[in-house]
Amino acid sequence: MQCVSDSENNPTAIELQLRWGDMDPLNHVNNVQFARLLEETRVRAMDLWFDGDSRAVLGPILIARQDIEYVRPLHYSPDPAKVLIWVSRVGESSFTFDYEMLDAWGKRVALAKTVCVAADLETESARAIPDGAKRVLNAHLGDPAPMR
Amino acid sequence: MQCVSDSENNPTAIELQLRWGDMDPLNHVNNVQFARLLEETRVRAMDLWFDGDSRAVLGPILIARQDIEYVRPLHYSPDPAKVLIWVSRVGESSFTFDYEMLDAWGKRVALAKTVCVAADLETESARAIPDGAKRVLNAHLGDPAPMR
Amino acid sequence: MQCVSDSENNPTAIELQLRWGDMDPLNHVNNVQFARLLEETRVRAMDLWFDGDSRAVLGPILIARQDIEYVRPLHYSPDPAKVLIWVSRVGESSFTFDYEMLDAWGKRVALAKTVCVAADLETESARAIPDGAKRVLNAHLGDPAPMR
Amino acid sequence: MQCVSDSENNPTAIELQLRWGDMDPLNHVNNVQFARLLEETRVRAMDLWFDGDSRAVLGPILIARQDIEYVRPLHYSPDPAKVLIWVSRVGESSFTFDYEMLDAWGKRVALAKTVCVAADLETESARAIPDGAKRVLNAHLGDPAPMR
Repeated sequence: MQCVSDSENNPTAIELQLRWGDMDPLNHVNNVQFARLLEETRVRAMDLWFDGDSRAVLGPILIARQDIEYVRPLHYSPDPAKVLIWVSRVGESSFTFDYEMLDAWGKRVALAKTVCVAADLETESARAIPDGAKRVLNAHLGDPAPMR
Repeated sequence: MQCVSDSENNPTAIELQLRWGDMDPLNHVNNVQFARLLEETRVRAMDLWFDGDSRAVLGPILIARQDIEYVRPLHYSPDPAKVLIWVSRVGESSFTFDYEMLDAWGKRVALAKTVCVAADLETESARAIPDGAKRVLNAHLGDPAPMR
Repeated sequence: MQCVSDSENNPTAIELQLRWGDMDPLNHVNNVQFARLLEETRVRAMDLWFDGDSRAVLGPILIARQDIEYVRPLHYSPDPAKVLIWVSRVGESSFTFDYEMLDAWGKRVALAKTVCVAADLETESARAIPDGAKRVLNAHLGDPAPMR
Repeated sequence: MQCVSDSENNPTAIELQLRWGDMDPLNHVNNVQFARLLEETRVRAMDLWFDGDSRAVLGPILIARQDIEYVRPLHYSPDPAKVLIWVSRVGESSFTFDYEMLDAWGKRVALAKTVCVAADLETESARAIPDGAKRVLNAHLGDPAPMR
């Protein structure tokens, strides 16, 4: 299994603290909390990629779809997990984040993708992604995560 | 958009209370909490479908993959949401739950599917699904959720 | 241990679904989720006590303090927990909710109290509670929860 | 308002990442998530204070009571919050953690205390704290947090 970080995808690595309370009775990080960690990865990556102005230009985004492949249980440790994030597609009003999640020992625990839509929250309808925001997203373009 | 409940899928309907705290700063139920609601739907459906003995026969299950299509924002209300759940596939060691999530007014807010694996938690490897458990799952078989 | 509901406190009873995911590796509802259940109790009680107009009159409220006494572990079940809620104090700009939380079998699992402040979110400062809202709160006044 | 960290309490400082999803519709970290952050602080402090053997000696602990005073709203930022934690009391079978929570700019957002009980999970009854564990806890003893 080749690590995505070895590829030419040029992903951004985000370190995320786990919380003991992310675990469930099966003694590993609950499947739902993987989605919480992906959300935090998106927020932190966009904070790094966009400056305040260009982020404002992008405007609010909604989640249209999210697929998560759980590769291996994630066990809590005080050392952070690491999520590699990149963009696999930029469309007119939507774009897709892809991710590889690694545990504190560098082992792949999940692959995932999130389709985001630039949205007008008032009308709950899609908006075109402004060119300035497209440029930022395109700078982080890579191949799709190798989900089964 | 035809409601899945009108089809011949024979889904089980689970009513789920929303919590005000499921919302995020965008003032609707956070995308991550949809996964929490799906988890609760699975637990309650299995509690209805299996008697204690047959549930014990199935043993622990792990999530191998989950795909969620977010159709429309879900707004908090004291009235419960409703999730329709059925089985779309039963394999040797894995099976798939499909879902349609409806808000308190009966509007579709999400479609989803979860691939579950019968697992040996000690060795973290897959187990064959016992015949007794297969029979229960097959009794709730239906067509795949019409995800895009 | 006398159940608060037997007293003259005239509490409002709110039934709350538990979620399997409220549990932690110790196999009972995590201590943090008790606070989530209290929040939901407040929201649903205020929805019952206030009509839309009087709730608008009260305006946003912030939590100034919350004390929870954990009496006994709360185990997950598909049957709802029940939280009794009443008001133990109404001041000029703050008031206090008291609670008794019962499991699905009617056993007390927690006592708690929450000091709420009528707040101006812009200035993050306290506001006087309008008379109309005070009347509603005073109609649900009872003795303090018997915390140790 | 004197910062607890300036006192002779000798607290341990734990840096905790916030998550965007910790926020609620009021656009600040939800009151319930403060309890989640305190839990994580306890886990990480005990991981620092105890070696594996002495932590095993202490055994499982349950929460008997938790009081949180919310001093000021906590706003999300990618920079971590900081929680100062120390022990304010060591008894025969219970002990008390006290905390001061600071935002990314060093401002106090909460004070709190948690009464923990050394517990036998089978019988759900209290156990005596072993001497080895008492010694570790006593090494982090300080004055009670100045809660109102």
